[in-house]
Amino acid sequence: MEENNGMVAELISVGTEILLGNIVNTNAAYLSEQCARLGLSLYFQTVVGDNEERLTQALTQAISRSDIVILTGGLGPTKDDLTKEVTAKAAGRKLVEDPKARKVVADFFEARRIKQKDITENNWKQALVPEGATVLPNPNGTAPGLIVDCQGKQVILLPGPPGEMRPMFEKSVFPYLQKRSPGIIYSRMVKLCGIGESKAASMIGDLIEGQTNPTIATYARTGEVHLRVTAKAENEEQGKKLVKPMVRELKKRFGVHIFSTKEDGTLEEALVDILKERKYSLATAESCTGGLLTARLVNVSGVSEVLKQGYVTYSNKAKHRLLGIPKGLIKKYSPVSDRVAAEMAKGAAANAGADVAIAVTGIAGPHGGTEEKPVGTVFIACSVKGQVTVREYHFDGNREKIRESSVVCALTLLRECILPQIR
Amino acid sequence: MEENNGMVAELISVGTEILLGNIVNTNAAYLSEQCARLGLSLYFQTVVGDNEERLTQALTQAISRSDIVILTGGLGPTKDDLTKEVTAKAAGRKLVEDPKARKVVADFFEARRIKQKDITENNWKQALVPEGATVLPNPNGTAPGLIVDCQGKQVILLPGPPGEMRPMFEKSVFPYLQKRSPGIIYSRMVKLCGIGESKAASMIGDLIEGQTNPTIATYARTGEVHLRVTAKAENEEQGKKLVKPMVRELKKRFGVHIFSTKEDGTLEEALVDILKERKYSLATAESCTGGLLTARLVNVSGVSEVLKQGYVTYSNKAKHRLLGIPKGLIKKYSPVSDRVAAEMAKGAAANAGADVAIAVTGIAGPHGGTEEKPVGTVFIACSVKGQVTVREYHFDGNREKIRESSVVCALTLLRECILPQIR
Repeated sequence: MEENNGMVAELISVGTEILLGNIVNTNAAYLSEQCARLGLSLYFQTVVGDNEERLTQALTQAISRSDIVILTGGLGPTKDDLTKEVTAKAAGRKLVEDPKARKVVADFFEARRIKQKDITENNWKQALVPEGATVLPNPNGTAPGLIVDCQGKQVILLPGPPGEMRPMFEKSVFPYLQKRSPGIIYSRMVKLCGIGESKAASMIGDLIEGQTNPTIATYARTGEVHLRVTAKAENEEQGKKLVKPMVRELKKRFGVHIFSTKEDGTLEEALVDILKERKYSLATAESCTGGLLTARLVNVSGVSEVLKQGYVTYSNKAKHRLLGIPKGLIKKYSPVSDRVAAEMAKGAAANAGADVAIAVTGIAGPHGGTEEKPVGTVFIACSVKGQVTVREYHFDGNREKIRESSVVCALTLLRECILPQIR
Repeated sequence: MEENNGMVAELISVGTEILLGNIVNTNAAYLSEQCARLGLSLYFQTVVGDNEERLTQALTQAISRSDIVILTGGLGPTKDDLTKEVTAKAAGRKLVEDPKARKVVADFFEARRIKQKDITENNWKQALVPEGATVLPNPNGTAPGLIVDCQGKQVILLPGPPGEMRPMFEKSVFPYLQKRSPGIIYSRMVKLCGIGESKAASMIGDLIEGQTNPTIATYARTGEVHLRVTAKAENEEQGKKLVKPMVRELKKRFGVHIFSTKEDGTLEEALVDILKERKYSLATAESCTGGLLTARLVNVSGVSEVLKQGYVTYSNKAKHRLLGIPKGLIKKYSPVSDRVAAEMAKGAAANAGADVAIAVTGIAGPHGGTEEKPVGTVFIACSVKGQVTVREYHFDGNREKIRESSVVCALTLLRECILPQIR
């Protein structure tokens, strides 16, 4: 994956707050994925503080070894913000006031009904740009983005806050980079659940082996596998033509394991769509996940059409009171058992008057594990129109990880039980 | 904060998966915070792929400009994993089998009941270490950590998975680095809720202005502010002496806003402790947060002592059925109103037979906002022994962010209502 004869990009994240561990560098992860999507090779990411000497060192090195350098952060109005000044110096250009950049600043305050005369001198500083730079609009902030030619290399300056950086990248930088690449990059996402990464990889080993155009990249997510099919082409139409047969082949091989082919499609969204389609109402009953499964479903705007109610029955008493499970049964089989999971699903469906119910009970740790049922043992039960399926899982990791895996497996099992052709 | 005449550390994260945007580099954030805690200056973080030439370039540069270089990743058993080999070459040392490292590998498999003869050749490769290196045990994996002297600089190699890296850092690397620093660094954490970052900062402006030893660093977290008081001292006793009066001063200024002075103390943990202390049982009722609040409480191992049950009543019907709120009342006041929030809390307490109940209802968006109640409007109600408090909030951001803010504010309000001296 990493070797490639195309253009080479490099990322520099500027900000002392990243060096202090104050914030996690999610910008770098986002931009890295975008570079991969654009077919750019990325060999280095650097983080450096708001310090002129060290920022200059990092930028000079990046320009010397890469074609495109993307910097985030340090574009604000304070005297700590140096990215623009350092870049101008490296490019041998002076800072001049740009009318388009001035408009970015003015528009921002106007939209917030702040009068021109109340805008501080510092804020107008943001209208200064290296001479000849391309100014990128910023509908979400006062710092315009910039593209500066630096010894024939393109240096792209973006604001640090993800809420400003991402829309700017999507609207201005992505098309700019796409246009600069010799031809275009067209890609499609295929998202799988209910199948492990190594199993998925082995099922397409022949396709990946010796792949040239299009290529398939594999991304492992908790309980999911994402496949990105990417083609280099002269235009979008040709790109689609190259990608289409590969996506068709993946659909043939993975069948119902594919839950989405949308770029930002989620498993919970796919599930809610299926429930809506079949006009099934849903109830949940959670023990070890404590509400996490229901919260995941409520991620989907419009879930209220299908979700009747959710029960968090962490204690045995709650399992008895809210779901009607006889106390004797819990005692006999233990609250973490296939039998109690099944009764939880049945009870949730009955008490909520729902067509479908999903229930989770398990030992998320760190305490409560036994020889027979170690930490990580989880039972998930699904009731569809009275028919109950129970499955036992064993997850690795800490409390958080076990609960997260339980949620994804519950969504996957529920999907399997509603789409019976999977089994 | 950044300028410092002490030792300089540098981080290198190794892994093509980070360059592809496949994973977010949380290791760098964790290690950066630990370096700050140790009083080490950190000027650069670099990410580089599993590539011999580029990794050598990054390591050589880091050694040339820093005293301590911490590498994570690339210690696994596959031929892609090169970190150990590259470091040995840079240090001019050959790889030799180390009995302690061999034991790390053997112990790992023994704990998992895998027979010695079934361990692959690749796994034994992990027992090879640069000659003279210090071997760090890894109770959570097969790759031992290593400390290698490289031209008088210390190069520390840690495994990439956070579940292996963090415990190894905490147990082996932190005390090692603490011992090496000239004197020691002693720090204490003071965590606040129910107060904004700028308010908190303004309340200690005089303490931060001109601070030398100890120093206070401010970290903003969703709905929380963390203050770290750090002192440089000759020994722990002296460190404690320096930090103590400052912590006492912070306690005086922030009073009950302080929910924890533990390094990894959480708001939910603090809350569960207070509930336990007062022998209060708890119930929850969630609409827009959809289970997220209850899930946060279930983070606390042993929460079952206080948490009776949780209701996720996303639909109006569920609010009526599970919490007994008259349909007419919901229609009259709208489901997102102070009145319905109050009824949710009362209903949850009554139906669960709990002393305390917390309820959340709001508009998380992207749809459902109105002129009068825009997206981000959230009502939180708390019932303590029949006394109900309701508060209205207006949060910024997307659906996820609004729900996250709602959860923290609900925990904070609940704490306020149980500790009445806050108001």
